[in-house]
Amino acid sequence: MPQPDHISALPVPEPARLDADIQAVYQKCMEKLGLVPNVLRAYSFHPQKLRNFMTMYNELMLGDSKLSKLEREMVAVVVSSANRCYYCLVAHGQAVRRLSGDAELGEMMALNYRVATLSPRQRAMLDFAWKLTVTPHQVEEPDRAALRAAGLDDAEIFDLADVVAFFNLSNRMAFALDMMPNREYHRLDR
Amino acid sequence: MPQPDHISALPVPEPARLDADIQAVYQKCMEKLGLVPNVLRAYSFHPQKLRNFMTMYNELMLGDSKLSKLEREMVAVVVSSANRCYYCLVAHGQAVRRLSGDAELGEMMALNYRVATLSPRQRAMLDFAWKLTVTPHQVEEPDRAALRAAGLDDAEIFDLADVVAFFNLSNRMAFALDMMPNREYHRLDR
Amino acid sequence: MPQPDHISALPVPEPARLDADIQAVYQKCMEKLGLVPNVLRAYSFHPQKLRNFMTMYNELMLGDSKLSKLEREMVAVVVSSANRCYYCLVAHGQAVRRLSGDAELGEMMALNYRVATLSPRQRAMLDFAWKLTVTPHQVEEPDRAALRAAGLDDAEIFDLADVVAFFNLSNRMAFALDMMPNREYHRLDR
Amino acid sequence: MPQPDHISALPVPEPARLDADIQAVYQKCMEKLGLVPNVLRAYSFHPQKLRNFMTMYNELMLGDSKLSKLEREMVAVVVSSANRCYYCLVAHGQAVRRLSGDAELGEMMALNYRVATLSPRQRAMLDFAWKLTVTPHQVEEPDRAALRAAGLDDAEIFDLADVVAFFNLSNRMAFALDMMPNREYHRLDR
Amino acid sequence: MPQPDHISALPVPEPARLDADIQAVYQKCMEKLGLVPNVLRAYSFHPQKLRNFMTMYNELMLGDSKLSKLEREMVAVVVSSANRCYYCLVAHGQAVRRLSGDAELGEMMALNYRVATLSPRQRAMLDFAWKLTVTPHQVEEPDRAALRAAGLDDAEIFDLADVVAFFNLSNRMAFALDMMPNREYHRLDR
Amino acid sequence: MPQPDHISALPVPEPARLDADIQAVYQKCMEKLGLVPNVLRAYSFHPQKLRNFMTMYNELMLGDSKLSKLEREMVAVVVSSANRCYYCLVAHGQAVRRLSGDAELGEMMALNYRVATLSPRQRAMLDFAWKLTVTPHQVEEPDRAALRAAGLDDAEIFDLADVVAFFNLSNRMAFALDMMPNREYHRLDR
Repeated sequence: MPQPDHISALPVPEPARLDADIQAVYQKCMEKLGLVPNVLRAYSFHPQKLRNFMTMYNELMLGDSKLSKLEREMVAVVVSSANRCYYCLVAHGQAVRRLSGDAELGEMMALNYRVATLSPRQRAMLDFAWKLTVTPHQVEEPDRAALRAAGLDDAEIFDLADVVAFFNLSNRMAFALDMMPNREYHRLDR
Repeated sequence: MPQPDHISALPVPEPARLDADIQAVYQKCMEKLGLVPNVLRAYSFHPQKLRNFMTMYNELMLGDSKLSKLEREMVAVVVSSANRCYYCLVAHGQAVRRLSGDAELGEMMALNYRVATLSPRQRAMLDFAWKLTVTPHQVEEPDRAALRAAGLDDAEIFDLADVVAFFNLSNRMAFALDMMPNREYHRLDR
Repeated sequence: MPQPDHISALPVPEPARLDADIQAVYQKCMEKLGLVPNVLRAYSFHPQKLRNFMTMYNELMLGDSKLSKLEREMVAVVVSSANRCYYCLVAHGQAVRRLSGDAELGEMMALNYRVATLSPRQRAMLDFAWKLTVTPHQVEEPDRAALRAAGLDDAEIFDLADVVAFFNLSNRMAFALDMMPNREYHRLDR
Repeated sequence: MPQPDHISALPVPEPARLDADIQAVYQKCMEKLGLVPNVLRAYSFHPQKLRNFMTMYNELMLGDSKLSKLEREMVAVVVSSANRCYYCLVAHGQAVRRLSGDAELGEMMALNYRVATLSPRQRAMLDFAWKLTVTPHQVEEPDRAALRAAGLDDAEIFDLADVVAFFNLSNRMAFALDMMPNREYHRLDR
Repeated sequence: MPQPDHISALPVPEPARLDADIQAVYQKCMEKLGLVPNVLRAYSFHPQKLRNFMTMYNELMLGDSKLSKLEREMVAVVVSSANRCYYCLVAHGQAVRRLSGDAELGEMMALNYRVATLSPRQRAMLDFAWKLTVTPHQVEEPDRAALRAAGLDDAEIFDLADVVAFFNLSNRMAFALDMMPNREYHRLDR
Repeated sequence: MPQPDHISALPVPEPARLDADIQAVYQKCMEKLGLVPNVLRAYSFHPQKLRNFMTMYNELMLGDSKLSKLEREMVAVVVSSANRCYYCLVAHGQAVRRLSGDAELGEMMALNYRVATLSPRQRAMLDFAWKLTVTPHQVEEPDRAALRAAGLDDAEIFDLADVVAFFNLSNRMAFALDMMPNREYHRLDR
């Protein structure tokens, strides 16, 4: 039985009918990634919200930070694993594979990060990400202290929290709209 | 024992040392609200992320939408109730009181929305908000169908999902940074 | 939309038709509190059970104990927060505000006690109350030891357990009967 | 390894040092049951609270009600099963065996009531008891409607709620004080 | 109301129509136990699967192991308690009573093992069994270390894991087929 | 950081020191699969238990059944997804890819089966598998009725239950022993 090929449960605008700035983004995605991530197309239902989402995302995942891009992607996948978000696990699992050159690491982040061999810093980050996702009201000072004990400074704690928080947003948009990831992700960087 | 008066568990920059655009926002807040919401001051730890957060927030909560501002605030509070986020319950609980002129409604949204007298449309929105927050991986087509049956169209479903998703982000930032709300909220619109 | 003004999902007897001793209690409530708490009116469906409930309540919350009245009310609210009981959160949240003179403390107990500044003794009591409410079968000797380490003696442990247990009873009666609190509570002691 | 023979984790007063009315109760228990239930001895730590507990219990479990005594005991055991309360499962499991003359029924109530052959009325009562115990905040009008559809009237709903609520109290006292049931229960009515 | 006397929700073959080897097993059960355990009769729906189940069971529960037969039965009952499996609680609860000569110990294992007086080794085994049953994905090296600290060696850890795993299988077969235990178990070894 | 390359947290016997029948199995695996599944090597810690495990597995997953081999593997992966078992997700996820020729289907089963396009029969089977894994005590006659309504007969229900039960066993052995899957699985059938 063929798997679903919709992008969103809501209507998805034709790219040609979108504003020039968004078309330019799509074109840049095609050039750099070979695809336009379906999350962008699903969000283009409301172009201004797409712009805001991309601005936040770009700063968060691609901007300057003492968290490496790989670390940020690992956190993104662990949050998405806790929430069981298919879209983000597929798209960001591929990012972990690409950035780490380690296909197994991507699988571990998606399926159960506890089996991975991690540095104490990474493990502390991912434990914090899991807890802040699953039982946020139980996050208190000892949880921040555990991050500090693993070497994270204030700026790193801020950026970690921000990635966790953001993927709790984007996971829920993906569920609410039944977003399906681009099929290309599956075969990349295996 | 005096209650905590910190704004964040991380350092909070002096307003005077922030960029002019952010100082201008603070000033506008003082004029309109009589206070600078502590979430802004906590986020000013990373000024660019503050800007992105505000841009997204303003579109989401104050921009055009077929969801009324009160409905959006009700959703914000119900998400924060599910997550037990003190900051957002205090700040947005006040917003529900102010916009509805109904102090009890604010309390009901914060404590247990199921006791409130709600229209079928409102009840459907809040049930969706609760489920998307607490068990997002169980949100499927029947959940969207329930919204449609209650009269929501595609644009309203998008905006509803967006508010739910956003407060799942902001609740987690509040927990991660132990943000405390401005004390003024407590006494307003009772 | 006006909020619900019923007292109970079951019929509520007219005060004038109740026995004299209960009418006398109602009158005393009017004199002291300016209202007859709706929980009494809801329970008057079965007058003898109302009497037993009041006798237990009065000993528990107003009788001699090394737990202060404020401490007992804080515990009552934290139990009700764990259970999300609107009636008890509104009625006993007001009691915390009144006894502490601290409106924020009442909000913190109702919304998430972990954000409050508490003495180690108070924190230990509230942690015990939460656990005994949410996962009672996991309460074991180390939990009593934690209370003792925070300075509670046997009599205090007994009284603490008793308050936690009682509000697990009264929360459930409130849910089962859909009891609504007197509206006056909302505005008192803000 | 011999099993525990304590009555409570807190001190238990010598019967001879208790007030005459409580000694009289103990004597009556010996005459009728052949034992003094350990819950009474544990509660005698605070004699007035023992009196209030007994008064409430006697009305609830032994007083007039359209719920039969067996039905009330079945509800008591199902609540205690949800909470995994050893004391109440042993003591009230025996009561179900005695009142029903059906040892298996007692085991089913204690271990998993869903396997028992029950009338629709009984099943509705026990489903309500389970839900009000485990997820009280989700009890709403449809839950009361299900009871009514199974034939319960207002008075029966009140009494059912009261039994569920009371055992949520007594289970928690048993956990908090680590009460152990009298060994005699184990062998009775098998 | 008479309790259910079915063996399985699926058809149960007449013993006389089963292969000779299975009939021989039934006969041996009658001789040794005075009954044919209903789990065997339910499984005889698929004779080869019954054979495999018995082979695994016999090695696991009756074969050589440094875990005593009583310890294995205690683990079986605690797993079944976590899962609330009526069949296995009744059948293996009786086994604990028989092997220990302690009827209370059987009840404790079935209702809440935390109340029992246990050696540190037993407590560690049962804590591991509970966790591996309820939150298997959280079992990590510290959990094995706790077993080692309580004196278990590699072979004992293997056998413990195997018993826990097996009863997570058999509990689920019992639920899926609604298996009812032989009534004789209830009265044995009280 | 290189990922773990252990097979089990317990010692793993050298193949050359195992009995001839097990060595023959290993050789057959090498011929057919190009690898000896690590689960066999981990289980060879106790050779007789390995034999029993393989006998059960072969009947269950490879024997005659009206459930196709693909359906059985889909069930295996969904159970392992509910339990978050890395070993089984990797090994049986590959089996779904191989048997279906659909790499995305394997990912969907592992990450969140609810996003897949499934026949009503498949969806019913996977919903049953999830529920029997996560809340087995809530499986009752309506759950079997849903399978029958989707076209499953008694034999299919038996075999479905058996696969669900078995992977609840094998997932727990994998967690208890920290089994790591053969790395070859990751790259196969992408």
